[in-house]
Amino acid sequence: MCMEKNILLTIAYDGADFSGWQRQPDKPTVQGHLESTLSSLFKKEIILNGTSRTDAGVHALGARASFKAELGLPTEKIPMVVNNALCGREKGPFAIAPIRILDAAEMPMDFHARFDCKGKKYIYKISNTKEVDVFSRNYVYHVDRPLDVEAMKQCAMILKGTHDFKSFESSGGNPRETTVRTIFDIEVTGTTGGQIEISVSGDGFLYNMVRIITGTLVDMGHGKIAPEDMMNIIKAEDRTKAGHTAPPYGLYLAEVYYDDFERR
Amino acid sequence: MCMEKNILLTIAYDGADFSGWQRQPDKPTVQGHLESTLSSLFKKEIILNGTSRTDAGVHALGARASFKAELGLPTEKIPMVVNNALCGREKGPFAIAPIRILDAAEMPMDFHARFDCKGKKYIYKISNTKEVDVFSRNYVYHVDRPLDVEAMKQCAMILKGTHDFKSFESSGGNPRETTVRTIFDIEVTGTTGGQIEISVSGDGFLYNMVRIITGTLVDMGHGKIAPEDMMNIIKAEDRTKAGHTAPPYGLYLAEVYYDDFERR
Repeated sequence: MCMEKNILLTIAYDGADFSGWQRQPDKPTVQGHLESTLSSLFKKEIILNGTSRTDAGVHALGARASFKAELGLPTEKIPMVVNNALCGREKGPFAIAPIRILDAAEMPMDFHARFDCKGKKYIYKISNTKEVDVFSRNYVYHVDRPLDVEAMKQCAMILKGTHDFKSFESSGGNPRETTVRTIFDIEVTGTTGGQIEISVSGDGFLYNMVRIITGTLVDMGHGKIAPEDMMNIIKAEDRTKAGHTAPPYGLYLAEVYYDDFERR
Repeated sequence: MCMEKNILLTIAYDGADFSGWQRQPDKPTVQGHLESTLSSLFKKEIILNGTSRTDAGVHALGARASFKAELGLPTEKIPMVVNNALCGREKGPFAIAPIRILDAAEMPMDFHARFDCKGKKYIYKISNTKEVDVFSRNYVYHVDRPLDVEAMKQCAMILKGTHDFKSFESSGGNPRETTVRTIFDIEVTGTTGGQIEISVSGDGFLYNMVRIITGTLVDMGHGKIAPEDMMNIIKAEDRTKAGHTAPPYGLYLAEVYYDDFERR
């Protein structure tokens, strides 16, 4: 007899061709594409419970989503079977799909991909080069003027810890009980005139929070905002005090944590 | 008084979102997009004379196209002005356009970008990794089984020189006087299980020639075709004797030569 299982998927996706994660009528979305693939594959309606609704153009290295179904195949076979169905052959016999299942794990039936989430890690990629590379346009934020990476590193550290991040929230998000969040770690790596990455992990993120943090750090790297203002920006609890919102295509949802010990 | 000039553009483009170079009604093409941008910018109809009609999905690092017009601005300002007009702001204020003008040069009035072309260089990119990278799916040919790169290097050398390359031509190209072409140089670089590049320069290329050369070398790298068969494949003058046609998205038009001494 086939038993219903609660399956947690780890998913990478290229967000360039999608209108974000969340299912929308008449728009290509990651959730919509994945649900319709899973539903035809398993011949029943599959509803995905995703951890994060990434915006249009945002990518994932390790997004998470769960679904309940009686599948009639071993859990470890799910990635291969779903990836074959996702394979994107409309672009030819060797084409790679924009969505890829990296892992499938069986979870307890009461596990919930979003409510049980203990934290997430995002990576933001900046190309600080004078030359424009047309081939990376959907995958990095191109900033041509040199950035003071050392100043950005110092400013980033001030964000670490528990703060009210209201200054780093765009309007238009879901109503929330509180705008207090904890950043476990934030790191800026790379060099002026090269490839720069901002890696930030926390217990939760407000709408556009990583993109506004990035935009603020870029403005500081250009000397438009003084490093000593970072604490004042936090204290102001006012979006207009922070920097610009960096574009979506440099942002990658890197990891989703379900256990406290996974947090880095 | 403003004089008509013959301007030669050097152009990079990401072919992922285009149905190839050549203008087509109701399809996004590089020529179509560039001509309409130039025409609105210079307020007159601009017709581009391109060197190569790349297929859908094929990229360019240094394509060439010329046009004649009275412009009323110095030639050296053309790249900046056209790039600003091409900037692709529909994807947001920081977006990079898929087409970029790298250079503009004033040529004699009787210069013709295609007829005066003395040769071209293409690069074909292969990712020979077990892991599939969703972010490079439009930019490399992913081959998961290990390739014998040393065998590919040896086989490639046999193609160098002047041969009838009929075995390496897809049907559907334009009628040609001869299928004899000269490959100036061909080089395979990279390692088994890593990133591999095939670089090939010649006086001209038949329809899909570089993609069939690549597919044949991949089949040899997998042991499906023996290296000693390469000369027989050339001599057969029969497409069915060569290997598969590698997909378009790994191919880059790298350089266009107008002087014999530029050839490498």
